[in-house]
Amino acid sequence: MATTCDVAILMGSRNDWPVMKKAADLLTEFGVSNESRVLSAHRTPAAVHEFVRECEAGGTQVFIAGAGMAAHLAGAVAAQTVLPVLGVPLAASDLNGLDALLATVQMPPGIPVATLGIGSAGAKNAALLAVSILAAARPKLREALRAYRQTLTNEVLREKLD
Amino acid sequence: MATTCDVAILMGSRNDWPVMKKAADLLTEFGVSNESRVLSAHRTPAAVHEFVRECEAGGTQVFIAGAGMAAHLAGAVAAQTVLPVLGVPLAASDLNGLDALLATVQMPPGIPVATLGIGSAGAKNAALLAVSILAAARPKLREALRAYRQTLTNEVLREKLD
Amino acid sequence: MATTCDVAILMGSRNDWPVMKKAADLLTEFGVSNESRVLSAHRTPAAVHEFVRECEAGGTQVFIAGAGMAAHLAGAVAAQTVLPVLGVPLAASDLNGLDALLATVQMPPGIPVATLGIGSAGAKNAALLAVSILAAARPKLREALRAYRQTLTNEVLREKLD
Amino acid sequence: MATTCDVAILMGSRNDWPVMKKAADLLTEFGVSNESRVLSAHRTPAAVHEFVRECEAGGTQVFIAGAGMAAHLAGAVAAQTVLPVLGVPLAASDLNGLDALLATVQMPPGIPVATLGIGSAGAKNAALLAVSILAAARPKLREALRAYRQTLTNEVLREKLD
Amino acid sequence: MATTCDVAILMGSRNDWPVMKKAADLLTEFGVSNESRVLSAHRTPAAVHEFVRECEAGGTQVFIAGAGMAAHLAGAVAAQTVLPVLGVPLAASDLNGLDALLATVQMPPGIPVATLGIGSAGAKNAALLAVSILAAARPKLREALRAYRQTLTNEVLREKLD
Amino acid sequence: MATTCDVAILMGSRNDWPVMKKAADLLTEFGVSNESRVLSAHRTPAAVHEFVRECEAGGTQVFIAGAGMAAHLAGAVAAQTVLPVLGVPLAASDLNGLDALLATVQMPPGIPVATLGIGSAGAKNAALLAVSILAAARPKLREALRAYRQTLTNEVLREKLD
Amino acid sequence: MATTCDVAILMGSRNDWPVMKKAADLLTEFGVSNESRVLSAHRTPAAVHEFVRECEAGGTQVFIAGAGMAAHLAGAVAAQTVLPVLGVPLAASDLNGLDALLATVQMPPGIPVATLGIGSAGAKNAALLAVSILAAARPKLREALRAYRQTLTNEVLREKLD
Amino acid sequence: MATTCDVAILMGSRNDWPVMKKAADLLTEFGVSNESRVLSAHRTPAAVHEFVRECEAGGTQVFIAGAGMAAHLAGAVAAQTVLPVLGVPLAASDLNGLDALLATVQMPPGIPVATLGIGSAGAKNAALLAVSILAAARPKLREALRAYRQTLTNEVLREKLD
Repeated sequence: MATTCDVAILMGSRNDWPVMKKAADLLTEFGVSNESRVLSAHRTPAAVHEFVRECEAGGTQVFIAGAGMAAHLAGAVAAQTVLPVLGVPLAASDLNGLDALLATVQMPPGIPVATLGIGSAGAKNAALLAVSILAAARPKLREALRAYRQTLTNEVLREKLD
Repeated sequence: MATTCDVAILMGSRNDWPVMKKAADLLTEFGVSNESRVLSAHRTPAAVHEFVRECEAGGTQVFIAGAGMAAHLAGAVAAQTVLPVLGVPLAASDLNGLDALLATVQMPPGIPVATLGIGSAGAKNAALLAVSILAAARPKLREALRAYRQTLTNEVLREKLD
Repeated sequence: MATTCDVAILMGSRNDWPVMKKAADLLTEFGVSNESRVLSAHRTPAAVHEFVRECEAGGTQVFIAGAGMAAHLAGAVAAQTVLPVLGVPLAASDLNGLDALLATVQMPPGIPVATLGIGSAGAKNAALLAVSILAAARPKLREALRAYRQTLTNEVLREKLD
Repeated sequence: MATTCDVAILMGSRNDWPVMKKAADLLTEFGVSNESRVLSAHRTPAAVHEFVRECEAGGTQVFIAGAGMAAHLAGAVAAQTVLPVLGVPLAASDLNGLDALLATVQMPPGIPVATLGIGSAGAKNAALLAVSILAAARPKLREALRAYRQTLTNEVLREKLD
Repeated sequence: MATTCDVAILMGSRNDWPVMKKAADLLTEFGVSNESRVLSAHRTPAAVHEFVRECEAGGTQVFIAGAGMAAHLAGAVAAQTVLPVLGVPLAASDLNGLDALLATVQMPPGIPVATLGIGSAGAKNAALLAVSILAAARPKLREALRAYRQTLTNEVLREKLD
Repeated sequence: MATTCDVAILMGSRNDWPVMKKAADLLTEFGVSNESRVLSAHRTPAAVHEFVRECEAGGTQVFIAGAGMAAHLAGAVAAQTVLPVLGVPLAASDLNGLDALLATVQMPPGIPVATLGIGSAGAKNAALLAVSILAAARPKLREALRAYRQTLTNEVLREKLD
Repeated sequence: MATTCDVAILMGSRNDWPVMKKAADLLTEFGVSNESRVLSAHRTPAAVHEFVRECEAGGTQVFIAGAGMAAHLAGAVAAQTVLPVLGVPLAASDLNGLDALLATVQMPPGIPVATLGIGSAGAKNAALLAVSILAAARPKLREALRAYRQTLTNEVLREKLD
Repeated sequence: MATTCDVAILMGSRNDWPVMKKAADLLTEFGVSNESRVLSAHRTPAAVHEFVRECEAGGTQVFIAGAGMAAHLAGAVAAQTVLPVLGVPLAASDLNGLDALLATVQMPPGIPVATLGIGSAGAKNAALLAVSILAAARPKLREALRAYRQTLTNEVLREKLD
């Protein structure tokens, strides 16, 4: 089955979907095609490998991987591709995501994972970073990002404190 | 003075150069034009702003910012641009870079910083990530990345343990 | 629009107001004029800069900045002024404010941020510290601080354990 | 013996002097009178109390206290005065100053300690913060701070990377 | 007012009583006279000093001090007496008691604080440690401790898992 | 090329060899056949997979994997086999092995990695644990372990303090 | 009373049972005989010793020990046997299991404890690791593990995201 | 062989002696009889048990136990006696003593370990705490402690800063 999305989103567990959906929704909001899959570096290593291959063949430009605990998913994807891989550490254990952050960001030299913050903030920022990467070839996305940024700015400036 | 590099590298202090030079050298090795500047989010905020504007005007595609302690530089750049910003936390205090890591990666939703690992490994990976971003429009860079990756693989496979 | 408060309070998000309001209320209780604004180092950097300029022009003596996560707001204010800047780290992520504490306190030499404790205790103490700074020129504030301290002392001494 | 310095610097041990001397030297460079004392919250509590009284009587405006480990010195001074107390956590144990940072910054509501970064950067910033507090009544100090800041800016802008 | 308890219990805030009461109740269960007071190292330093003096005059043998955040209370008591001082770090901030633990245990050489675990476990163990110290002069307390220990052992051995 | 060792030792980098050699040497001392390879979860994922297959085919009973930073090697091996996998976190970054520890031990349910301590102590203990696993089928190894343990005991008991 | 289970499960407190029961249930699911006991390294050291002796005599092959706080139980068992000992750190204090993790995993050279992740994930993985150790002598267990792994894989692959 | 010292000092390894000797020397300086032994909770559990029994029989009043890593020694002693047990966490691993601190201090309710700071400061304070415990029955020790404290005070007060 061919995969032809611009951005492929992987997550280690169904439980990660409420957080990672924020990335998917934001990409869709920007008109960026995306596809989300539950795939585990440890329970389905072959399927991760195969999915990355399919995505590359189908023209995917960016990978986003969200995982908790000993979060190896982003690194496992990065080991299979030279496309940009964005990692979102999730707070899925008693250690509040510190485990996932260190397991995602402290990659050895040679295999980069672009790590975002823990949880929802990181998921949204992964989507925005993916858009900014795609924007190199699609000037309209850059304009959309500027408009989005301006909206954020306006929202902040409109805040009234009682 | 116009800046026309593909990748602009900023660092908060002259002391960061031995680490950040690894990013610059690796970019050069890939034939990616780059320019490095010491610019501080706190001591030269206006110059950071101005440099980002110049770079954008000159066609820069990716920013890399390395800083230690309360490492705000990458975030300060990200606040000024919608281009991809890569952050390299540096170990410049008694806390061994944990301060810089958290200050770089835990960005609020809306303003992403793609964070790499602490220190040299992070600096090299920032360069590779920048190349992978640029590779979307330059297929030869993708080939070069694959060749680099193959070299890493070969180096590992050639290791002999006495 | 001119700003003529003695103490300007900034916070990175509307969500920070329930905590930062404790600083505002305590300042008001001491008869110190204050004004609170939601302004983000990352989403509204220009507005932060402009607000600091306005405050300085209007005679503000002290800045208080509360922020969570990669808490750059206090540092961003400090980069724009040589007036005292007090930072309040907020617990706004899975890391319970440790990220905000390190991002606020570990400033590089040259740009001080006077950091208080995480959350409500820090917000109240920021107000008291601001009052103690203003008290240099207003002896009545010093008396008021002594009276406040005496009240705290009396409250503790009156505690009965059942 | 009367103490008539503007800024009183306390440190918990002779070993802290190489770091805290940076605060003293910077104050002197700004023409701010200062006096440094080794006084321990635990080994000389009465002398701390007495020294704070003397300083207050002599017109001291700001206290700076540097200490390591379970760094109680700044808090002990703050318990005795309503003048601004600046705390500098020092890395004096195997925990690299994290102990001193938390013991200094996490003050209960009512007794603020303005905490700076760990070690030398914090010591220098304590001096600058003290100058900025004194500057409310001495406009020339404000000018001097602006000049100092400009010097920092210029130093950064002059950096050349080989 | 004379204080003639064997063990004096201090706590920094009324909020600490539910935890510290476990120490008081356990002491009472062992027939050890005890008295509990809310007294703050920062808000009532003179009262802490005075209470320690009174206790010493009245024959107190052991001090127990429970506090949260920058927990200086045990250290402040230890600075005033050469009697054994037991410290109980309390989880009273976003940092879950890590701040209180480090602020209590990392005392400088010369002024010991015998630190127990964070929270209720620590409060109970402080009581037991106090009893074991008093037992040197009261053989019946040693027997009571052995009986208590045997009860704990029996309770564990009687546990049935369904 | 067939691999017929009882215990296969993998490590992420040549730099890990001085530590991991302690495991190899101890296995050899127990007469347990072992083979060590530099193989990286990120730079040579296919070779890791292939090596695990070969080892399984050749009769390997236990895997030991040592890695630093975002230490995924043990988890990557565990994803490929249901044989026991022992992980040794190595201190290879500014974070002193805390990153490797969390990335190794916090595995998701379903894919266990038996984690030992950081560095040399962990490497030696991995060897001993491997021997204890093999000992189920080789009673002489159990005897050898008991003798080794007795030697450790004797060494401790022979220690003289001057 | 003789104990003849393959795997003996110890836990420091009745409160640990809801977590450790996941290990017991999984072992039972694999047809591995197991027995669970509440036994404390500190409150019943002699009973721990005796239980380990009984288990060894009865043919137990693997020990699993779960404990929180200063989690010494696994280490105490390991000190009494050369059979494999698996440790499960539990989150039973304000420190969220970080205390138990370090107290379990950082064993000195010579006495290994195979440490799994904190809490439920670790308990399940301890059971699976125990099965993989027993599988050396029982090929059917190895098949069962492969089937279990395949089930996990299938479950992941069947996940649908709405 | 009978042991008749007032204070028994145990340490987990010969390597701990340079630190623990500071406790022994300070006790000797106070005229308190003491005996130091290398005994390991893991490598010589029976000898620990036996030594505690001997010490109790010989009249020992206080135990001091220093250990690093998963520092179980103090807890193991406390499990065998109701006499006061003082724990000194040592920095003997890459984690700088944080592991030993948590493994020593976070004891479950019922079995107290009086924990001192990490390393030399903790060792000295353990000796002073032991003296303060013994002083209940020997008024001269109390006087000696006061004199020692006065010496510390005088040393601090005599410090001259150049």
